[in-house]
Amino acid sequence: MTRSAQNSTAPAVVTSDAMVCEVLNGALGGYRMLRQWEASDPIAMLRQDAADVRVLVAFGSVPLRSDLIDALPNLGLVQVMSAGYDGVDPALLIERGIQLANVGEANSGVVADHALALALAARRHIINGDNWVRTGQWDNVGRYPLVSTISEEKAGILGLGHIGRSIARRLAGFGVETAWWGPRPKPDESLPRADSLLALAKASSLLFISCPGAPETEKLVDRNVIEAVGADGLIINVSRGSVVDEDALIDALRNGRLGWAALDVFEKEPAPVARWADVPNVVLSPHHAGVSFGALDEIRKRVRENVDRFHAGEPVLNRII
Amino acid sequence: MTRSAQNSTAPAVVTSDAMVCEVLNGALGGYRMLRQWEASDPIAMLRQDAADVRVLVAFGSVPLRSDLIDALPNLGLVQVMSAGYDGVDPALLIERGIQLANVGEANSGVVADHALALALAARRHIINGDNWVRTGQWDNVGRYPLVSTISEEKAGILGLGHIGRSIARRLAGFGVETAWWGPRPKPDESLPRADSLLALAKASSLLFISCPGAPETEKLVDRNVIEAVGADGLIINVSRGSVVDEDALIDALRNGRLGWAALDVFEKEPAPVARWADVPNVVLSPHHAGVSFGALDEIRKRVRENVDRFHAGEPVLNRII
Repeated sequence: MTRSAQNSTAPAVVTSDAMVCEVLNGALGGYRMLRQWEASDPIAMLRQDAADVRVLVAFGSVPLRSDLIDALPNLGLVQVMSAGYDGVDPALLIERGIQLANVGEANSGVVADHALALALAARRHIINGDNWVRTGQWDNVGRYPLVSTISEEKAGILGLGHIGRSIARRLAGFGVETAWWGPRPKPDESLPRADSLLALAKASSLLFISCPGAPETEKLVDRNVIEAVGADGLIINVSRGSVVDEDALIDALRNGRLGWAALDVFEKEPAPVARWADVPNVVLSPHHAGVSFGALDEIRKRVRENVDRFHAGEPVLNRII
Repeated sequence: MTRSAQNSTAPAVVTSDAMVCEVLNGALGGYRMLRQWEASDPIAMLRQDAADVRVLVAFGSVPLRSDLIDALPNLGLVQVMSAGYDGVDPALLIERGIQLANVGEANSGVVADHALALALAARRHIINGDNWVRTGQWDNVGRYPLVSTISEEKAGILGLGHIGRSIARRLAGFGVETAWWGPRPKPDESLPRADSLLALAKASSLLFISCPGAPETEKLVDRNVIEAVGADGLIINVSRGSVVDEDALIDALRNGRLGWAALDVFEKEPAPVARWADVPNVVLSPHHAGVSFGALDEIRKRVRENVDRFHAGEPVLNRII
């Protein structure tokens, strides 16, 4: 039997896997952390403590196994460690009367920073430029070819939640004219909302994707949208790979109907090496837009706060369901 | 004799070298462009037309040969194609009564964009992250190690001219607390000015260098300043290599007394491959912060405007001397 050495009368908390527990890094000190993944039969082990468990902590983007939820009859809260919660099946939680909470805007700043890092790296050829110096091409070939830059462009943002707004604030500092689109108008928002995603794509040479991953956003960025961003355009995705028709994106990059793509997220993760090896004009990033030292501290703080609140019978923050 | 086919009664303009002429790309259409570098004896060729030449166009950062100036008795204006004019000897122009003009803030936006691109690429590990995906480490090793991000940092700007202010506006969009230092107070400036460069470096984990290259700024960023930015710090240079004690910078990077450097400019350019090959934690860029399609159009427009103004007897814009 695997059980922490902490006070056995403390409330028990389940984390979905070892990585979640490692990332929490002691943030839930005082709770009994059930490390079911260390047991030969994790579900059987969970069942021993099942009655005590009212909270489960998970990554938002990793599919949450329904057998974990089934094994916990008194589960009342699933707390995810990100803004996104596409790994969680809302229907199952609603059916069981289980609450779902995320960490609100805890990491929207770093995601927006990463989105700008990707956009600027693509436009200013940071990877190829570094290579130009290191391989001696600066000396042997000469000046780096002329490139464009974001402050001369128009941007569109798909999805204006915490992250989209954080991207918009950064773009304003660059003097970039910015519009957005989402399914619902936001009367308090001063940025112009395009008539449709396609209209947004047509008007933009930079398209930032920052909407939730969900069945209703699946392949929302389809061939038509991609080609509307166009041969001089750049698509930046810091949301979920599912939002983009990735085959169409790769095809458009190969055929020059899309200029560039800068991607932190992929249809399949880890991104298969062979799939991307000879795709031109892409900057690839291993799905780490959402984390930084500071953001992770804030995420841990918010998870702790909600776990405490739930056990104290207080309303949790950033409740989704 | 090498002479353009244009109207021989049109005023003659000299460009310092073939590259300047190529970059101008017809912006001075209507003028007689003297292509002295194509002659076997350029100075002799220039002397044939010398009396007609009142304007010389040069890059600001490339040393301007004094024998060109000596060969042109009626030279009245040296027009550079950048904000910097460190390639020009002011004493020589003053002695001869020759005016000097730059292109003002024509390219300050793209330089600031590039500075942010470099800072974000270093902090968000854009080059290593791309490599992590492409080499299959995401699959074989796992998640990318945790990194920091600029919106959690404090920034200092050395030199608050057009470029420094453009960097400051961008940092404000990221919510970065920013201070600056320069030799002269700016009463109209709302950003706080540090008591000294060393005080600025101590208070900052991001130090942006955007002051002019000149004898008085040579190695201003010395070992003390570099070590004050410190083990967690990042120095971004989009000014001139001469402003930094590059040996001290490399030494500090090797010994962990400086965290990172992101450099568009170097003591010697092109940057020698061997010098940088095994220096850790550097993003290298082949001195192209100052150019983009849009910035180059604006530079050409301003060069044309000043050449026209000078020949019409009107005051030139962005006059330095």
